Amino acid sequence: MKHRLFTPGPTPVPEETLLELARPVTYHRSAEAKAILAEVSEDLKYVFQTSNPVFTLTSSGTGGMEAAVANTLATGEKAILCTAGRWGERWRGILKAHAANIVTVEVPYGKAVTPEMLQDALGKHPDAKAVFSTLSETSTGVGHDLEAFGKIVAKTDALLVVDGISGLGAMECRVDAWNIDVCVTGSQKALMLPPGLAFVSVSEKAWKKIDATPIRAFYFDLRRYRKSFAESDTPFTPANTLIKAQRASLKRIREEGIENLWARHGKIAAACRAGVTGMGLKVFAERPNNALTVIAVPPGVDGSGALKKLEKQYGYKLADGQDTLKGTIWRLSHMGYTDAFEVLGAISALELVLLESGVRFEPGAGVAAFQRSYATK
Amino acid sequence: MKHRLFTPGPTPVPEETLLELARPVTYHRSAEAKAILAEVSEDLKYVFQTSNPVFTLTSSGTGGMEAAVANTLATGEKAILCTAGRWGERWRGILKAHAANIVTVEVPYGKAVTPEMLQDALGKHPDAKAVFSTLSETSTGVGHDLEAFGKIVAKTDALLVVDGISGLGAMECRVDAWNIDVCVTGSQKALMLPPGLAFVSVSEKAWKKIDATPIRAFYFDLRRYRKSFAESDTPFTPANTLIKAQRASLKRIREEGIENLWARHGKIAAACRAGVTGMGLKVFAERPNNALTVIAVPPGVDGSGALKKLEKQYGYKLADGQDTLKGTIWRLSHMGYTDAFEVLGAISALELVLLESGVRFEPGAGVAAFQRSYATK
Repeated sequence: MKHRLFTPGPTPVPEETLLELARPVTYHRSAEAKAILAEVSEDLKYVFQTSNPVFTLTSSGTGGMEAAVANTLATGEKAILCTAGRWGERWRGILKAHAANIVTVEVPYGKAVTPEMLQDALGKHPDAKAVFSTLSETSTGVGHDLEAFGKIVAKTDALLVVDGISGLGAMECRVDAWNIDVCVTGSQKALMLPPGLAFVSVSEKAWKKIDATPIRAFYFDLRRYRKSFAESDTPFTPANTLIKAQRASLKRIREEGIENLWARHGKIAAACRAGVTGMGLKVFAERPNNALTVIAVPPGVDGSGALKKLEKQYGYKLADGQDTLKGTIWRLSHMGYTDAFEVLGAISALELVLLESGVRFEPGAGVAAFQRSYATK
Repeated sequence: MKHRLFTPGPTPVPEETLLELARPVTYHRSAEAKAILAEVSEDLKYVFQTSNPVFTLTSSGTGGMEAAVANTLATGEKAILCTAGRWGERWRGILKAHAANIVTVEVPYGKAVTPEMLQDALGKHPDAKAVFSTLSETSTGVGHDLEAFGKIVAKTDALLVVDGISGLGAMECRVDAWNIDVCVTGSQKALMLPPGLAFVSVSEKAWKKIDATPIRAFYFDLRRYRKSFAESDTPFTPANTLIKAQRASLKRIREEGIENLWARHGKIAAACRAGVTGMGLKVFAERPNNALTVIAVPPGVDGSGALKKLEKQYGYKLADGQDTLKGTIWRLSHMGYTDAFEVLGAISALELVLLESGVRFEPGAGVAAFQRSYATK
């Protein structure tokens, strides 16, 4: 049986990238290493659509998020937190650990925070130093309108800080044009690498705040990264095999072109959602994003059991809901190195499991709907 | 030309470990992933010689060091810092970032902090909450007598916190028997993996202090690791391909046996030092350790230029001195996946470069001295 990874991180890694990882390890302070880091940093700027430097941290995405918090906020400073799920809650956990004064803008799981809600919160809290938000709320499949968020926040002194971990590279996100001051992503999503690296962009506006903020961190002190990266170096020993491999995956993105990449993800995501509704199921997210499709488990079906069957019988590994959503949703990623035909296969496998579970619909309804969408858009 | 990595991190990685890295990426929350993490954690306990859990962090060694500081010290609490070089200074940087009250016990580069000096400092500062020290000071090649440090610190309420990043697995270090409360190491030294993982052990005595300390950290909050690792899970998405590969390298260590490994490193290190003195050079460290040999550049020789020649002409990559020691020392690692014959080759290449630089000694003096030592010990 073939095994296919459809979890929203980690995602499949291209073969040429995997082979990079198997090459002998080299010294991280050589001229060659610096040239590789410089190349990766340039390609990341392209992916982020920013002219500001993008720093590579050896950590999971959460480490990059903590860097964003620890560098931009002093103890007790006010932060507006836009949260629509578990990854918004991750911001909350980090903000609490750093003793921020948190103003929460919250919506139920499946909904998105609207620009109006953010506008309202900023109006009530003009002393907020930063707004924390999530591009793709992977726990529910919701995407936020960050372009609109950016227009609102740019009119204030506050920074817009974005967790782009599972969205960047899969859906449109223009860091500079959208006025995103700090954007964080991880290697194991649309950037087609195993987990282990986080990437952080910092705007000029953000640097002004950072340079005026007492920072209680060492490894995540972004000023150290600014200094080292100016010389194409890292402040601490980096996971240099991952950086080398990241270069290979970034080349793929460069070759395809970022706008083509967004369009491809959009087309696959639309077909996937058509496939889901085609077999009578519901997309969970009110404002779905193109990184993953989150499907509401239909009544009477054992959600977690169906996922086990999908994996055991057909080799498709999807992700369950997290925490309170466990068993109630299925999360199917189409980020990165996953093509339309593999997603079609996932819809096919899901159809089979549902039919076996007694859900009634015409066999092929899902895959045909997928195909119709894919053929016409 | 063959290229050989002799830098004191990263070090060569066994072929079977590299191939592990090239395997398809899998989900990090599966039963299989948990089983792998459990196995790695057990093998790490063996390497650390501890019965306490050892946590795997996705970060460089510095991240593990920051975890040790952030969890054990509250703002303004007193720490005794034993420093003999750049990695002792790393402790200082982290301690400063966390607003510790630092009492420094310092020796010039090349010397080691003695147990008497530590005893004296603890006597003068009975309110010290922790002692920070370094097993192998990689910047100078010095090793510290941590067994003696442990006996002294164990009589007090203070914790003994050790940077074992470039020593653990290469030289004797018995975390429990030596009363080391927090020990940190990294993947890219004697543990034969690329950079990207840090490992941290925590004693019962340390937990008591941690549980009573307000922690200003999220990603490095060790309580989160304790909770997750109790279920063979990680609090944040780990660099799971590195963890899988670490399993392969740890199997090697298990098969050889930790005491055999220490003995092998000791024998190679002794032969290397004999080779160095055999060609009329000086070992830089007063109390050399077995992880690496640091050689004083002889008068009249361009230290950095010689290293470039070694790499360009013979494929041997050694490390230069750092900061003020640049050009004055050569650092040759014999940690991990490096055998006696490769180190002999390095001595041979170094001889050739020195002879070409006009240093006068009988060709073969170094390799013969290496061989005599290796054959008789």
